[in-house]
Amino acid sequence: MSTTYEPTQKTQVRRRPDRGNYDRAVVHKIIDKALVAHVAFVENGEPRVLPTTIVRIDEDVYIHGSPNNNLLSAIAAGAPACIEMTLVDSIVAGRSGFGCSMDYRSVVIYGRAEQVTEPAEKERIIDALVQDIIPGHIVRRPKRKELAATLVLRFPLIEVSAKIRDAGNIDVEEDYDLDLWAGVIPLGVAAGPGKGCPRLKPGIETPGYALNYKR
Amino acid sequence: MSTTYEPTQKTQVRRRPDRGNYDRAVVHKIIDKALVAHVAFVENGEPRVLPTTIVRIDEDVYIHGSPNNNLLSAIAAGAPACIEMTLVDSIVAGRSGFGCSMDYRSVVIYGRAEQVTEPAEKERIIDALVQDIIPGHIVRRPKRKELAATLVLRFPLIEVSAKIRDAGNIDVEEDYDLDLWAGVIPLGVAAGPGKGCPRLKPGIETPGYALNYKR
Repeated sequence: MSTTYEPTQKTQVRRRPDRGNYDRAVVHKIIDKALVAHVAFVENGEPRVLPTTIVRIDEDVYIHGSPNNNLLSAIAAGAPACIEMTLVDSIVAGRSGFGCSMDYRSVVIYGRAEQVTEPAEKERIIDALVQDIIPGHIVRRPKRKELAATLVLRFPLIEVSAKIRDAGNIDVEEDYDLDLWAGVIPLGVAAGPGKGCPRLKPGIETPGYALNYKR
Repeated sequence: MSTTYEPTQKTQVRRRPDRGNYDRAVVHKIIDKALVAHVAFVENGEPRVLPTTIVRIDEDVYIHGSPNNNLLSAIAAGAPACIEMTLVDSIVAGRSGFGCSMDYRSVVIYGRAEQVTEPAEKERIIDALVQDIIPGHIVRRPKRKELAATLVLRFPLIEVSAKIRDAGNIDVEEDYDLDLWAGVIPLGVAAGPGKGCPRLKPGIETPGYALNYKR
């Protein structure tokens, strides 16, 4: 398998080609770090977006939810989808409004959903999602009826691209002489210490993965 | 003006109606806190998504960019758009995989872009965006040609809804007896201290708004 995705008509980054990236490892890292994916599709000719959790296993990503969710059902029916994730790495404070920007990493995936129907496969995907979001967290095994009542959708990573800006300040040349502050403000995900459920059984301590969560 | 948006066919939250919210003040707060908006539209019958910064002024939101950006141009041409923003407030670590979730606040806006053409109006919007993202930051005034070379799009807040989950743990009743940890991990935006541009003029100190950035 090639280490890169093949650019297509839709994934070819045109506006700033130097920001386009098709490296599988780079794309995987962005998907794995994102907490929310934005899944767009077309319904009655109009765009809709569903924000949802996502998990990647090798060269597939998976979303899931209730079959009673109209948006998810429309995606499950096989409509073309566009899945986007963006990580903001820093705010770029420029010397002009047009010099203000963000350093970011985004991924876009095009494809159609394939339904996962096999219960053991669904269980493996839900397990992977739990470990993706909360590494180390222990849960009880899913019940057959829970798996049956959950729609799990697979999108193979085929038509995929990343777009990355990590340039920091880019100002108009003459602006560098201005007596104005400019720079970058690094951003990330802050997590507070995990707080136990009010109905936690007595004697169960908050585990380290929840006290010192990092993403 | 009513304090709420009128639900429509598209914005009526069906799956979990208790999570739907049409209060203007609630919607405004989510938009104002989000750093990135996800703008979906339809091109040749297929969905596309553009992640971008956004700013709200009263009952309008604005996005901007280069007229050379194909995606933005398609949106500017007046195609129906769906703008979505999501804030993840906490990870909910449940007692089962299906009890794992997130507390979040999301907004969806439907509408068509109106182009802002008046230079003074564009300047006001770019200024508002800079102050939205980096409150207190001082920039030089935009040049006429910069304003002319920037596409600024307005979306009036008409067909809008928020969806909010702030329930914490919701497990299957019998699961509360399990000897498993469950709880919530609060999330937010972490900012490191601002770092001056390598080409900063000597003697310019990093201002407080960049050293102690909060969002």
